Amino acid sequence: MTTAHTVHDVPLDAGLLSPVRAGTAAEAATHDTACLQAMLDAESALARAQARLGTVPTQAARAITDAARAEQFDVQELAGRSRAAANPVVALVQLLAEAVREKDPEAAHYVHQGSTSQDVLDTALMLVSARTTEIILGDLERVATGLAGLALRYRDAPMAARTLGQHAVPTTFGLKAAGWLQAVLDAEQALTGVLETGLCVQLGGAAGTMAGYLEYARIHGEGEAAGGADYAQRLTTAFAAELGLAEPLVPWHTVRTPLAGLAAALALTTSALGTFAADVQLLSRTETAEVTEPAADGRGASSAMPHKRNPALAALIRSSAYQVPGLVSALTHASVTDDERPAGAWHAEWQPLRECLRLVGGAAHTGAELAEGLTVHTDRMRANLELTGGLVVSERLAAVLSPELGRAPAKTLVSRASAQAASSGRHLADVLAEAPELSGKHSIESLHKLCDPAEYTGVAGSLVDRVLDRFHRSRRCGTA
Amino acid sequence: MTTAHTVHDVPLDAGLLSPVRAGTAAEAATHDTACLQAMLDAESALARAQARLGTVPTQAARAITDAARAEQFDVQELAGRSRAAANPVVALVQLLAEAVREKDPEAAHYVHQGSTSQDVLDTALMLVSARTTEIILGDLERVATGLAGLALRYRDAPMAARTLGQHAVPTTFGLKAAGWLQAVLDAEQALTGVLETGLCVQLGGAAGTMAGYLEYARIHGEGEAAGGADYAQRLTTAFAAELGLAEPLVPWHTVRTPLAGLAAALALTTSALGTFAADVQLLSRTETAEVTEPAADGRGASSAMPHKRNPALAALIRSSAYQVPGLVSALTHASVTDDERPAGAWHAEWQPLRECLRLVGGAAHTGAELAEGLTVHTDRMRANLELTGGLVVSERLAAVLSPELGRAPAKTLVSRASAQAASSGRHLADVLAEAPELSGKHSIESLHKLCDPAEYTGVAGSLVDRVLDRFHRSRRCGTA
Amino acid sequence: MTTAHTVHDVPLDAGLLSPVRAGTAAEAATHDTACLQAMLDAESALARAQARLGTVPTQAARAITDAARAEQFDVQELAGRSRAAANPVVALVQLLAEAVREKDPEAAHYVHQGSTSQDVLDTALMLVSARTTEIILGDLERVATGLAGLALRYRDAPMAARTLGQHAVPTTFGLKAAGWLQAVLDAEQALTGVLETGLCVQLGGAAGTMAGYLEYARIHGEGEAAGGADYAQRLTTAFAAELGLAEPLVPWHTVRTPLAGLAAALALTTSALGTFAADVQLLSRTETAEVTEPAADGRGASSAMPHKRNPALAALIRSSAYQVPGLVSALTHASVTDDERPAGAWHAEWQPLRECLRLVGGAAHTGAELAEGLTVHTDRMRANLELTGGLVVSERLAAVLSPELGRAPAKTLVSRASAQAASSGRHLADVLAEAPELSGKHSIESLHKLCDPAEYTGVAGSLVDRVLDRFHRSRRCGTA
Amino acid sequence: MTTAHTVHDVPLDAGLLSPVRAGTAAEAATHDTACLQAMLDAESALARAQARLGTVPTQAARAITDAARAEQFDVQELAGRSRAAANPVVALVQLLAEAVREKDPEAAHYVHQGSTSQDVLDTALMLVSARTTEIILGDLERVATGLAGLALRYRDAPMAARTLGQHAVPTTFGLKAAGWLQAVLDAEQALTGVLETGLCVQLGGAAGTMAGYLEYARIHGEGEAAGGADYAQRLTTAFAAELGLAEPLVPWHTVRTPLAGLAAALALTTSALGTFAADVQLLSRTETAEVTEPAADGRGASSAMPHKRNPALAALIRSSAYQVPGLVSALTHASVTDDERPAGAWHAEWQPLRECLRLVGGAAHTGAELAEGLTVHTDRMRANLELTGGLVVSERLAAVLSPELGRAPAKTLVSRASAQAASSGRHLADVLAEAPELSGKHSIESLHKLCDPAEYTGVAGSLVDRVLDRFHRSRRCGTA
Repeated sequence: MTTAHTVHDVPLDAGLLSPVRAGTAAEAATHDTACLQAMLDAESALARAQARLGTVPTQAARAITDAARAEQFDVQELAGRSRAAANPVVALVQLLAEAVREKDPEAAHYVHQGSTSQDVLDTALMLVSARTTEIILGDLERVATGLAGLALRYRDAPMAARTLGQHAVPTTFGLKAAGWLQAVLDAEQALTGVLETGLCVQLGGAAGTMAGYLEYARIHGEGEAAGGADYAQRLTTAFAAELGLAEPLVPWHTVRTPLAGLAAALALTTSALGTFAADVQLLSRTETAEVTEPAADGRGASSAMPHKRNPALAALIRSSAYQVPGLVSALTHASVTDDERPAGAWHAEWQPLRECLRLVGGAAHTGAELAEGLTVHTDRMRANLELTGGLVVSERLAAVLSPELGRAPAKTLVSRASAQAASSGRHLADVLAEAPELSGKHSIESLHKLCDPAEYTGVAGSLVDRVLDRFHRSRRCGTA
Repeated sequence: MTTAHTVHDVPLDAGLLSPVRAGTAAEAATHDTACLQAMLDAESALARAQARLGTVPTQAARAITDAARAEQFDVQELAGRSRAAANPVVALVQLLAEAVREKDPEAAHYVHQGSTSQDVLDTALMLVSARTTEIILGDLERVATGLAGLALRYRDAPMAARTLGQHAVPTTFGLKAAGWLQAVLDAEQALTGVLETGLCVQLGGAAGTMAGYLEYARIHGEGEAAGGADYAQRLTTAFAAELGLAEPLVPWHTVRTPLAGLAAALALTTSALGTFAADVQLLSRTETAEVTEPAADGRGASSAMPHKRNPALAALIRSSAYQVPGLVSALTHASVTDDERPAGAWHAEWQPLRECLRLVGGAAHTGAELAEGLTVHTDRMRANLELTGGLVVSERLAAVLSPELGRAPAKTLVSRASAQAASSGRHLADVLAEAPELSGKHSIESLHKLCDPAEYTGVAGSLVDRVLDRFHRSRRCGTA
Repeated sequence: MTTAHTVHDVPLDAGLLSPVRAGTAAEAATHDTACLQAMLDAESALARAQARLGTVPTQAARAITDAARAEQFDVQELAGRSRAAANPVVALVQLLAEAVREKDPEAAHYVHQGSTSQDVLDTALMLVSARTTEIILGDLERVATGLAGLALRYRDAPMAARTLGQHAVPTTFGLKAAGWLQAVLDAEQALTGVLETGLCVQLGGAAGTMAGYLEYARIHGEGEAAGGADYAQRLTTAFAAELGLAEPLVPWHTVRTPLAGLAAALALTTSALGTFAADVQLLSRTETAEVTEPAADGRGASSAMPHKRNPALAALIRSSAYQVPGLVSALTHASVTDDERPAGAWHAEWQPLRECLRLVGGAAHTGAELAEGLTVHTDRMRANLELTGGLVVSERLAAVLSPELGRAPAKTLVSRASAQAASSGRHLADVLAEAPELSGKHSIESLHKLCDPAEYTGVAGSLVDRVLDRFHRSRRCGTA
Repeated sequence: MTTAHTVHDVPLDAGLLSPVRAGTAAEAATHDTACLQAMLDAESALARAQARLGTVPTQAARAITDAARAEQFDVQELAGRSRAAANPVVALVQLLAEAVREKDPEAAHYVHQGSTSQDVLDTALMLVSARTTEIILGDLERVATGLAGLALRYRDAPMAARTLGQHAVPTTFGLKAAGWLQAVLDAEQALTGVLETGLCVQLGGAAGTMAGYLEYARIHGEGEAAGGADYAQRLTTAFAAELGLAEPLVPWHTVRTPLAGLAAALALTTSALGTFAADVQLLSRTETAEVTEPAADGRGASSAMPHKRNPALAALIRSSAYQVPGLVSALTHASVTDDERPAGAWHAEWQPLRECLRLVGGAAHTGAELAEGLTVHTDRMRANLELTGGLVVSERLAAVLSPELGRAPAKTLVSRASAQAASSGRHLADVLAEAPELSGKHSIESLHKLCDPAEYTGVAGSLVDRVLDRFHRSRRCGTA
């Protein structure tokens, strides 16, 4: 049953067009063979769960479990055959039954007993999601730790805050890193919540009534208690336990909340990482040069320009952030279902979900490298802060001067002086020192001190502490 | 300052192109005047919060509050002036200060003290979101109650389950309604969670350090404790308390988790309602006719065809479900921020967020009418179940006959008999009665009884009970 | 340099989660190896174009061309190395130069001469797009021919037109098929236009000035005419000629019109096919049963229900239509570029573009099977038309009776009679026959004739002819 | 029939949350009253077209035309009533007929004769689209002229090209402006094409067969030629002529190509403008300062920081570019139709289409201000070019030195020298002057000349000329 394909015959997606996840653990957890293994895991877990409840012979469950190994199947052939039923499970059940039959003919009859394609495929995708989410959380842990380190180390390092691309007032690099961290902790919290309770097995049978499971149970003299409700519940519990997934209240063939929750958490993650990357891009621009990406052999090389060190990690992360929203919107569209199984909407979920998982997985992996290796140039931050000759604290001066001048006159004076400083290239403190309104009230030194950006960072430090405190608490509790 | 526009001069959006929310409470809670009022509420709440902490005179806060009434402002003029700064707050602050000045010149200086446009606008949109979410939850309560009634009443009413558009096996209308209800309860739970903890004030000042607030506090001799951290925290607490919104850990200018959570909950709601509507559309098709929408004067009228009763409510709801995913994807794209305030991404959130709120609000309002008034035709469900002459229970027969025939022969026999029944138009039971394999084993009556769809609904009833139980529990606890 | 991976080690995407294109030609034209070959084709075409102009030795161009065979490279390794530069070209150039060097050390220096990653990758994706678009057009030709056959054969076969899911007035199946055809011809026209003029080579050098190409030309004593403009133009022409792609006015590194045009045409195609599929789904519902999908071994099988014949082809096509809009929106977002090469937006185009191509390719392939094999049940259409007992022509009766009764009274009478017919289950003609207003004016036979749906299909036939005429003209001219 | 609402009662959308189009002509062309007027225009044009063909009395057509004035109707009431039929046309027809009846009771019967809601609404939206597209094209003309002026004026002004945010090689500001212009010309061309042939009337009657129109024609003794086909065609021609819209081959109720074409052209426009704006944002960053937005009173003011001049126009434009892709994806989703009129998909098009039109209209209006008033700082560009001490031409040096050193050694030398220059802060020419490989071969002056960025701009000038040539040709021909 194994394949004679050579690698060049087969439809690869090794990330050549998606380097953000090329070769990552998230890719390995989501490729076709991994998805096939998850379907086989669902089939064998179902058999074992039924065996636990006495409605499949233990020996048959064992034979099914033994046969349920992806490397024994030809993924490409299976994919081709999946066109006939519009999903891969029908053909997989045939192939699995054949494989079981070779070793144990009787056991083959128990493959997929009472089940339906959607039970297997939805459960398999939840398994793939759980496995990939664990990988993502592992990488986010590294991202968060790296960012926490930056926030702590640069807690009080002043830099220019920028709004609409212009210097606004001073902030600190610590607060910037704390902002990235805060977003990553939000993402961690959302993904952890999804992983703990949101990824549940699917078990409904042909149309969500579990009738098929029950009918086979009755043949085995089971399932009569409470009209079958008791058996149905125990089967669901056993199935979930076999796979380490959550147990749903009822089958969710047409209620796609588990996917929606996962998609929302993945979108949050990609936004958090994308924001981090976007800031790194802006801060590492040639003119700004306040941070640089970690160096590595070949990293950031250009095929044309020998001198360049491109911020390649940030570009990779952003490539993910550009793609995920459209994929999530496809999932949201597909979540409007109909009948007992929608014809097209369900089928449209599989590939976008997989793609989201691996894009976010790749971004998290890349984000870990970036957070752990980012180089920060505080001298450059200081130098850039001086670029506007004190204008960056004009907000402060308007406030400070208002008790003596009145609020409106203070604002007017500062605006006038700012314009004059900007056009003449002189420092705001020097211009103000000549203002008749302030004559005799402030020494030029005191005006310069008022203009010191490092003296006007508000409560940046304590905001950093609040986020770091959340970080440390979440490490202890295991949740963000 | 009030307007002399006539209604025809002004840019209306009364839902002429979006009838799903035309005239609804969600529309009234989100139109420009409502958004303006929310911005004014944010400005006056800030003044009162500062007054509580002694950094704005109580009298000034009172004057600002008195002036902060939307009907005193010309929305259209304000919108026009909002182009200069790319947001409406700069112009609003000028207009509000003028309005205050007319009554209390001194108080005018305290308008927007220490603040920034984003604090006001983000907080205002959170207020609008909270107000609209409450309206939506009120309508979802009606939807849920209506669906719970249907699920209970039709708990055991058999109907055909359909997968990929074809009759599959029997289910019950109760279980279908319970599926709708389950999705609505998920949406309720998500929205309730967002409303309780997810909608928080924004308070960061020019660049998120709160420096401006602190500087003005110092003028008033406040804000020195713990380097200002204590004051900053108390101001945030007071501001949130004034508005009934949640208090964030830190300012979230560039960490858009509150919007993301809201958007995800709104998407979940529109999917839940959209699925309900899509099913109503399929079930009310002329050939199927298992449900009909509530009748109302003019409802479902056609401009061309006098006889038609269009399922207009369902069409309205689905129009919402088609639009929300694209809007949410715009919000997700915009959630990748940069600098201390992104130039364009932030500005792109406002209109899609408002549109999501009112589309979902309209869908919930419409869904309440639909859930409360849906007419169910169980006779027609019964008749449709008979259309396939027993084929709808072929799954069951394959199971039931397997102990006596073996699994494979049983499946083969049922497949063969099904094909024969389908091509000849005879009932499956009648065809099976002639099968040599079964000769003498089953009377034709027992075969017909085995083919009774009502006998093959699995644990549909108990699944309904589980969802109803969740519904009742959530009513008691106030959460889904 | 070739690989020792076994198939199970490698990240496959064989369509297991995207059966709509599993095993299709579009898949084979777009997988990683195909994309790699296209990049190699771009590199070797560049060398040959430069050789034509005398700026690369002919022998070197030949050696590069000989080495540029995808099967000589390890795609997975290359993908992994593409992370360093955030794109695969930098590593590919190294590997290609090594491969050339083994045979001809001198030639290796001419690999990628004067070029930049984006020139190679954009050109490669245009090549992949052109190759896949040709495949799609081949399948659309089959779809169009199949639909034209249906439109002609069933030109006058009456069926119920449905609006908002309800019987409206009669139409013909020919007109329905002509509507599908019209949409497919629009898609053909758009794709043909893109293929003929819209897919152009990229050739700009490091930042779009072509400086690198020119510098190397000058070493070879070329490129001085008109300050290099002449050489630049001739190089672009030669490069385009080598690859059979169009020649752009100027480099389009940051002007993504070629991608936008392609994406729009692909979206149009998926909508055309999706609409066809959606109609097939509705018309083949168990209760309606007016069409059935072509039968094939295993086609439409269910893993749970032996009797089912699922409309699997339609479900596959719709799975594509659900995914493409989100992917196109990602491309549109990414088309907002900045600098001379955007960091992330460009990188985000590759995978969604490939995915669009193969999803649409799969849908077209599947659509050909569906259009060529659709079975039409005109008897069932007739029977369904009778379901409403004449109500389906109520529009007509209101018109016909208006000269004798006046317009308003005619409409009132028909509405009243329609309601009566609907509630009593009697035929509209029979109800009208008893109406006092019509007493003595119309025989019951003439009223029944007026109610004959086949007599009220407007100009359906001539509309079919108009579309068929377009179809035939487009076959002759080679364009839709 | 007019309203007693005050402005504060009514649901305004004056752009308070969408300042990019607040108060623009595009807003005025798309608000509810404008859409209502377009529906009335469609109704009256239909009556006049029928009058031309003798199937409506001329006097009735005149009376209908007289009554069809939006200011006579209460938009808000109409919007509310549109919920009953899920579209506004049913209620509008009633109100219009009442209005006609007051003046001419007989004429009232001819309102909407033979028509259906979709004919009126689709045609109205095409009218609104045509009117707004003309406005957009007028603004794009200003944008293009402004950019052409910049491209010409700064044709040879050197600046740093940036890729992945880093200085790459030199380019010219002229070429940058030409790139923006090229994209705008592509958008103009697409929109012009849509306006000239893509926006067509809808005329199909209840289900696309035109049966209703024909039935009424027969009452008037018309419509028999060629079984009605001749009349149907003439009616469509006359209807299109009345409105100045294109004539479709057949009714397009379910073939949404006209909308798709428009949406694609609008997306292209928003990308073109968004790219221009994104570049302005980057170039005007405080550290870069190569361009500044046009000054205007209050423009770019900050509510917190008196010194700031925010690039507000660019932020407005980008807010549009962030929103349009999601709206377009909603339209693409909705373009998958079913039946003879989809229930929800059709209804979901109206608001996103309007929103796209006004967002793009606002962006074009804003873009005109930006293109006409952009200030360019060539001195700053020059200074920034020097920032990397010659590294920006390292690509050139590798090429120039290769004849004497061999290609590989040349590249190695330049890479080594670049690294040394970068770490030491010395100029690349100075470092190279000390390289033993070059000893005695190049004077330090000649090395500095080789490093002059202005000498390494490739064919930038001639590429500018090519785009300007296209611009001038398109002005003459009236198309881009």
